Amino acid sequence: VIAGICPDAHVIDLTHGVPRHDVRGGALNLAGALPYLPVGVHLAVVDPDVGASRRAVALGLGDGRRFVGPDNGLLWPAASSSGGIIEAVDIAHSRFRLEPVSATFHGRDIFAPVAAHLACGAKLADAGEPVDPEELVRLELTRPSLGDETVLAHVMYIDRFGNIQLDAVHEDLAGASLRLGRAVEITDAAGRRHPGHFARTFADVGQGELLVYEDGSRRLAVAESQGDAAGRLGLRVGDELRISST
Amino acid sequence: VIAGICPDAHVIDLTHGVPRHDVRGGALNLAGALPYLPVGVHLAVVDPDVGASRRAVALGLGDGRRFVGPDNGLLWPAASSSGGIIEAVDIAHSRFRLEPVSATFHGRDIFAPVAAHLACGAKLADAGEPVDPEELVRLELTRPSLGDETVLAHVMYIDRFGNIQLDAVHEDLAGASLRLGRAVEITDAAGRRHPGHFARTFADVGQGELLVYEDGSRRLAVAESQGDAAGRLGLRVGDELRISST
Amino acid sequence: VIAGICPDAHVIDLTHGVPRHDVRGGALNLAGALPYLPVGVHLAVVDPDVGASRRAVALGLGDGRRFVGPDNGLLWPAASSSGGIIEAVDIAHSRFRLEPVSATFHGRDIFAPVAAHLACGAKLADAGEPVDPEELVRLELTRPSLGDETVLAHVMYIDRFGNIQLDAVHEDLAGASLRLGRAVEITDAAGRRHPGHFARTFADVGQGELLVYEDGSRRLAVAESQGDAAGRLGLRVGDELRISST
Repeated sequence: VIAGICPDAHVIDLTHGVPRHDVRGGALNLAGALPYLPVGVHLAVVDPDVGASRRAVALGLGDGRRFVGPDNGLLWPAASSSGGIIEAVDIAHSRFRLEPVSATFHGRDIFAPVAAHLACGAKLADAGEPVDPEELVRLELTRPSLGDETVLAHVMYIDRFGNIQLDAVHEDLAGASLRLGRAVEITDAAGRRHPGHFARTFADVGQGELLVYEDGSRRLAVAESQGDAAGRLGLRVGDELRISST
Repeated sequence: VIAGICPDAHVIDLTHGVPRHDVRGGALNLAGALPYLPVGVHLAVVDPDVGASRRAVALGLGDGRRFVGPDNGLLWPAASSSGGIIEAVDIAHSRFRLEPVSATFHGRDIFAPVAAHLACGAKLADAGEPVDPEELVRLELTRPSLGDETVLAHVMYIDRFGNIQLDAVHEDLAGASLRLGRAVEITDAAGRRHPGHFARTFADVGQGELLVYEDGSRRLAVAESQGDAAGRLGLRVGDELRISST
Repeated sequence: VIAGICPDAHVIDLTHGVPRHDVRGGALNLAGALPYLPVGVHLAVVDPDVGASRRAVALGLGDGRRFVGPDNGLLWPAASSSGGIIEAVDIAHSRFRLEPVSATFHGRDIFAPVAAHLACGAKLADAGEPVDPEELVRLELTRPSLGDETVLAHVMYIDRFGNIQLDAVHEDLAGASLRLGRAVEITDAAGRRHPGHFARTFADVGQGELLVYEDGSRRLAVAESQGDAAGRLGLRVGDELRISST
């Protein structure tokens, strides 16, 4: 669809690996990748409520980026970190959409054509009706609880290696008196306890051992060296996980 | 291979997600995407009989599109809907193929180089030996049976969400007196009955409920809202499925 | 990352399908594809020891190609077949890397930016500190044992169809007096025996039958016609497999 409307657009496929219906996972992927992306039009679709009452939007950011996608929180973490949302339009009835619009494939019929027209120079104001940016759906992320030598965190995302991204950051462990290089105990959602290490990278522990580390997005994560930590710990997105000193 | 022969070709990867050996699924994907693709050279390979007696072909369509792939029905639904096949050549011994030609990887050794040469301006007549378009292998799609308040349809394709595309269209349900917004009963291949709704989109039913809806290809499909309908109903491509009023 | 540094780079995604941590599988993929790739900068990352002591390198080849990736054997089979390695640099502290460098995502922070700068004209000598090519980590591939009418081979790679690539080549079977078109017996790692044929392509045997054939990389492989040979034989990379005449 994009190639038909804007043949010279340089399309980068960031990922097609977000689990289905996982709005939060998509939002984290987009926000994590954003600092590494050239300024451009960022199209994202994870859209379990397609065809229902959720808004379809295009956003203009303070740093010149534009976002296109469903108004279900998917765009929120990335857009709100990118210079602020200075303009928003509702594109459900955009002049750029493909007719007839299907009820279940807005990625093709609304989002892609709007993104293509924006990439080829269209103004945001011509893509839809103005929306107050304050009315956009926000995605509030969980926060960990810090105890005495314990962090109670939540699973935010599980990548295709089975590495478990948490809602905690490096400073949270330091605040709970957990130190890099030291042994920790990880308690999974079923209450089972697993030994591990607070380490810098996978190879700092033996193959098959668990580690807590700061991942490429500067978040804490749990991995099994050369293994599948999420499978081993039986964890899913949203589950709680306790990291304690031993 | 294409970049080596025709460096300026703009390559669009439509999908690598067709289940292996599923010629019908590939054909439906291609035909469904075609109206949204710029005119160009369309290369498709789902080729369980690679290296055997099936023909390898390149086709010229009435609307200027060209198709390259195995002559096993994969190209047929798309090509026959695109202005008619006005020219066909057998490319098994094309001057454009890579030597030596392997017995099992014609995508690399025959189809890709022929497509690349066509994209860079070669004439179809120079790519192979003429074939009568009437002799090409056709892919005949099943049709549903319409009863009194019942549609007996067949599974044509299952996407990665587990949504089940049927060989029926919206009008078939209307012909069987089934109405949008009403409850229906879905009988799976094992004779088990499941309640559902004839709805417009996923969010029109509760999470975990089944719906029958018109999908983005204008075909009827069965989905579970935010779930995996094919897994739940135990259905595979080719299976029968009965939709009845309740 | 590449688009931000070198917007005009033509990026070809060769595969994202290498099983995690499978350095050997990645190396075989790269070496097998190399003869079909235009001369350019080849970036490869399968990196279970990321952040540990393994070197990060960029290589200059005799035929003008350049390689970027971890020095863990991944690049070795391809680079050593491509005109010889005439220059190597350690890029762990490259001036081109992104700061701060994460401990676990060198693909983003070191390899991609170095590859992008090379693609846009940077000299290899400016990308890092010189390394003696003789000191690079080599990946030694297993070799089959040839007996009297028997070949004892090893599984090198299993593709997404379940086809099993072996470390043997066509000539090995001939050396063991096995002939194309004849029946063979395949003994799996558990000692179970399976009938098969030494054939040219999948369609030379019936659906569901096993065949031994020369694959697109000129290596011997075992497949089940329209089935999943690796699943059926319970084989994994590194396992032994015996092919005998019957």
